[in-house]
Amino acid sequence: MKKLVIFGVGLIGGSVALALKKRPDAPSIVGVGRNIDSLQQAKDLGVIDAMETNIHAACSDADLILIAAPVAQTKAILQSIKPHLTANTVITDAGSTKSDVLAAAREVLGDQFCQFVGGHPIAGAEKSGVTAAQADLYINKNVVLTPTTETNQDAASRVAKLWCDCGARVSEMPAETHDGIFAAVSHLPHLLAFALVNEIANRPNAAQLFSFAASGFRDFTRIAGSHPEMWRDIALANKTALLNELTAYEQQISHLKQLLANEDGKGLEALFQTASIARNNWARTQ
Amino acid sequence: MKKLVIFGVGLIGGSVALALKKRPDAPSIVGVGRNIDSLQQAKDLGVIDAMETNIHAACSDADLILIAAPVAQTKAILQSIKPHLTANTVITDAGSTKSDVLAAAREVLGDQFCQFVGGHPIAGAEKSGVTAAQADLYINKNVVLTPTTETNQDAASRVAKLWCDCGARVSEMPAETHDGIFAAVSHLPHLLAFALVNEIANRPNAAQLFSFAASGFRDFTRIAGSHPEMWRDIALANKTALLNELTAYEQQISHLKQLLANEDGKGLEALFQTASIARNNWARTQ
Repeated sequence: MKKLVIFGVGLIGGSVALALKKRPDAPSIVGVGRNIDSLQQAKDLGVIDAMETNIHAACSDADLILIAAPVAQTKAILQSIKPHLTANTVITDAGSTKSDVLAAAREVLGDQFCQFVGGHPIAGAEKSGVTAAQADLYINKNVVLTPTTETNQDAASRVAKLWCDCGARVSEMPAETHDGIFAAVSHLPHLLAFALVNEIANRPNAAQLFSFAASGFRDFTRIAGSHPEMWRDIALANKTALLNELTAYEQQISHLKQLLANEDGKGLEALFQTASIARNNWARTQ
Repeated sequence: MKKLVIFGVGLIGGSVALALKKRPDAPSIVGVGRNIDSLQQAKDLGVIDAMETNIHAACSDADLILIAAPVAQTKAILQSIKPHLTANTVITDAGSTKSDVLAAAREVLGDQFCQFVGGHPIAGAEKSGVTAAQADLYINKNVVLTPTTETNQDAASRVAKLWCDCGARVSEMPAETHDGIFAAVSHLPHLLAFALVNEIANRPNAAQLFSFAASGFRDFTRIAGSHPEMWRDIALANKTALLNELTAYEQQISHLKQLLANEDGKGLEALFQTASIARNNWARTQ
């Protein structure tokens, strides 16, 4: 790979650039984005080699295009690059949901959909922006790729190599499987945390309640401090899987209420114990 | 105060002892407990001045008795000390729920219920046992006391002083208010975290789901690693308030499902934003 173009040089895109720059085979890295000041900062920090505002100039000789902008922009970016792709350009993204991205890519790219490989690096961080980018962000982190039966095998291999070069553990699965997994282990917890804080914040005694919240509340609700617009987009993009998760969770709550109403100490303890053992076993693998 | 007797010299009781021992007016601190090895360890570590297995010898000249054993033992401990209390002995506890403790104290202590002051130090820690005790555990932490109209004012003042001497911020409120607040900001989040992990752990693809769980999941579920027996007791002790909280939370989830099913992006973003702003404002006060 001689030239990598990154749309959106923030935490995610910037960290890819920094990781690759540590390698002897580092490509030329060109940043594209809506915010010129932010691109200039990326260039000044040495995260990218060049910035480009002309989409044709950026894309025409690119080997790989990584879309790492907010997911709501993905379709518009695909539309903007479509006229400038060659038969050898590979395109990938870094969005948190994959079925919707594949649908948009299929619609926009048409015959060239085979050159697109959906991707999702699992490397959340509380900070954002290029100043938060770090070369080791992806080391030993999971990256899920969602090639389809139509996807060019060479394209999938080149995207896998990109993330391997960043130190990540790459796995492949269908987009629907990906979206189901992340609905359960990421999107649902986010909605549950938002719901709890929303419930408390809307009560007349909210100030009193918050004043007695302690470390358990702090950790449980950390993800409720996440970006509202980003999570609106993720929730809508993964609507079906997320509705299924919310329904399954309602059944858990209903079951808990029943155990509690019946003062079923054994049942409560068994449920808490299953969870506690599973959580602590999981934590040991991290 | 010349003599403080602590039933249960673990994290909570041991940290009180260590905090008081730093003061020039430190009382003599006697530990009582079911586990002799653990008491001996507390003595060897210099956390307590003496250990005692004879309840009469421990209590007869005590100025203050702090019950810091697991809450399920509170009533039995009250029964065991009742015959040895003088008119000047003040009794307090450190349990997470207060209405149930006051009911037990009223039943067991009878005329001497006025000498009992319910207390709850808000200083959770992931570790437990006397080896985790630390002199600064309570500095700037909240301690809630729940005196009733029957409570001796001098007894309440002495318990308040105990916690002030440990560096804590002491407040008073009715037991029902306390239990309502902690149902919302502590007990509910614990049950929600247990429920999420239980849901995932019971699925056929649990291993796959856990393998893609990341930092958001880690923080959200930290409290699901809590002690099952302890949380069974807290849930049962605070049943009424907790059932109300679970019902309110069910309504939040139902509302979220409706917004999502209707693809109401504005509604979702507004809810997430209320939560995000409230969470981040709260975090700044911590």
